[in-house]
Amino acid sequence: MKKQNLEKILIKIFMNHKLNKDHARICSQALINAELVGAYGHGLSRLKMYCNRIKKKLINPKPKIKVKKISNSISLIDANNSIGFVSADIGIKKAISNAKKTGIGMVGIKNSGHYGLSGYYAEQAIKQNLITMIYTNAPPAIAPHGSMKSLFGTNPICFGCPSGSKIPFILDTSISMINRGKIRVAAANNEKIPEGVALDRYGKPTTNAKQALQGVQLPIAGFRGSGLAWMVDILSGVLTGSNHAGKVKDPFDDFSGPQNIGHLIITFKSNLFVKNFNNRIKNNIQIIKKLPKIKGIKKILYPGENKFYRFKKNIKNEIKINDSIEKDIKKLLVN
Amino acid sequence: MKKQNLEKILIKIFMNHKLNKDHARICSQALINAELVGAYGHGLSRLKMYCNRIKKKLINPKPKIKVKKISNSISLIDANNSIGFVSADIGIKKAISNAKKTGIGMVGIKNSGHYGLSGYYAEQAIKQNLITMIYTNAPPAIAPHGSMKSLFGTNPICFGCPSGSKIPFILDTSISMINRGKIRVAAANNEKIPEGVALDRYGKPTTNAKQALQGVQLPIAGFRGSGLAWMVDILSGVLTGSNHAGKVKDPFDDFSGPQNIGHLIITFKSNLFVKNFNNRIKNNIQIIKKLPKIKGIKKILYPGENKFYRFKKNIKNEIKINDSIEKDIKKLLVN
Repeated sequence: MKKQNLEKILIKIFMNHKLNKDHARICSQALINAELVGAYGHGLSRLKMYCNRIKKKLINPKPKIKVKKISNSISLIDANNSIGFVSADIGIKKAISNAKKTGIGMVGIKNSGHYGLSGYYAEQAIKQNLITMIYTNAPPAIAPHGSMKSLFGTNPICFGCPSGSKIPFILDTSISMINRGKIRVAAANNEKIPEGVALDRYGKPTTNAKQALQGVQLPIAGFRGSGLAWMVDILSGVLTGSNHAGKVKDPFDDFSGPQNIGHLIITFKSNLFVKNFNNRIKNNIQIIKKLPKIKGIKKILYPGENKFYRFKKNIKNEIKINDSIEKDIKKLLVN
Repeated sequence: MKKQNLEKILIKIFMNHKLNKDHARICSQALINAELVGAYGHGLSRLKMYCNRIKKKLINPKPKIKVKKISNSISLIDANNSIGFVSADIGIKKAISNAKKTGIGMVGIKNSGHYGLSGYYAEQAIKQNLITMIYTNAPPAIAPHGSMKSLFGTNPICFGCPSGSKIPFILDTSISMINRGKIRVAAANNEKIPEGVALDRYGKPTTNAKQALQGVQLPIAGFRGSGLAWMVDILSGVLTGSNHAGKVKDPFDDFSGPQNIGHLIITFKSNLFVKNFNNRIKNNIQIIKKLPKIKGIKKILYPGENKFYRFKKNIKNEIKINDSIEKDIKKLLVN
């Protein structure tokens, strides 16, 4: 389907679900962007879930979003259970305007929901020559180090900055060794999963995908990754007044209340301390790209390049929509 | 040796090397703290190196440190090649006072050197009920993902916040899978190193410690850890106007110039968005500590607990000084 047509359809679906046109457009563009960069887990596969949660009144389609000024640099947003895309969009724009005024902007967001890819919002800041760090918590997916029960979300750490070229530097990395979708695929195909990524239901390391599905996923780098996931839970949840410590609800199967996810955005001017940040980062990247490579590696890529190249390739073609999502779309258009 | 006596001796050594008394005390206390928390690689084992670099005029014992106000929240420190401890101490104090005034403080530091443990400075901020993030780059130690040459330093990420108890939450984690010291010990003992932590000189993964010593160490979590190390190099080096992209000099064996390490400190009030941060974090930690544990794990610890317990135990006893360091101390006292 052509991007423009898909966008029209998605806007219609979200408006059918009582979002206003602006909010419907924000959501539709975020979902399409996820498809174009190849992050399908954050794209159309979630459309039905969002609409479900709106119908069940767990996402508020007409939120009264309050932006509270804490200082010239700092704001707190109460998203009133809006769909995450909308609160994150307001949040990044507020963080950008604070940073433009004072050099640094920080925005905490509470009572929000899943917003897709952190890197999508980072891009907005980078276009304004800002450096940005974005944190969000998420429903339980990985076990804290030493535990055999999931509690931390995949809790991504996002860092973005101008690169001195048109491809922004955007690290947007989950703290999980493997995503659950990959374990499901391996289990279905009777394939093994790598060592050290999951425990079975008894808390023992396993490479058996089926046993891993009954157990827990592990954080990257043991105690270190567990600490990073904990940091993200503190910054997004504890600090902002949102759910934390495993209380963020799974959007797909927990309908007992709104998610109340928290996000934290910090953004600051790249030229605070040096006049020529763009030249400096360009030089940094060039030096690293020229390093001798290990066998089988043609190019050293910086974070964000892969997504950019996928976007550039996919934007030329129609967006592929699989049968199951086509069915979702048809149903959601009439309801 | 008793802590008080060791401190007197160290102060004397640093003053012999032309530091003023305040600076000598700052350095001595940082080194002793590293010993007490069991971070020996950042303690007395570095004393001779610091003095060497002062003698060779690569560390400036009488620096004219300039603190430039960028905004009420933001400052840039030009450390004038001071010993890292001194610039970091001034930096964290400036960041704290900026945060107390405006809610958030950010300090970039350039022309600095190795400052020991980031967590040591984080403690100062936490005592003032601040949350803090500290970044520093370091001499080449690990290979960027895809490369077979070291370029990134161990580039620690430090995050600290109040915990609601007397033991602060301090994550202070290097981005290296293994430190070089451990590989050296394994090589000396003809022991293997774990899989996935190092490459041999041809860029092939190896568990042979001797071959690893001729090769490179790997970042945690592959592309993800490499991205995090890159982020730290950008925040500490590119942003602040310091060396970056592998140009930070090794303090032990590169005497071709000052290190020009960069640091970045961000710190903000923990009660910006909620009134009861301390209760919230206490609750967060309690929930996680109560999770079911995997076999062999008695307690789930949060980052910083281990160091705190080591400190508490070690502070009761005299500080052990091995023969080689005792020799260093004796020599440095007369020169």
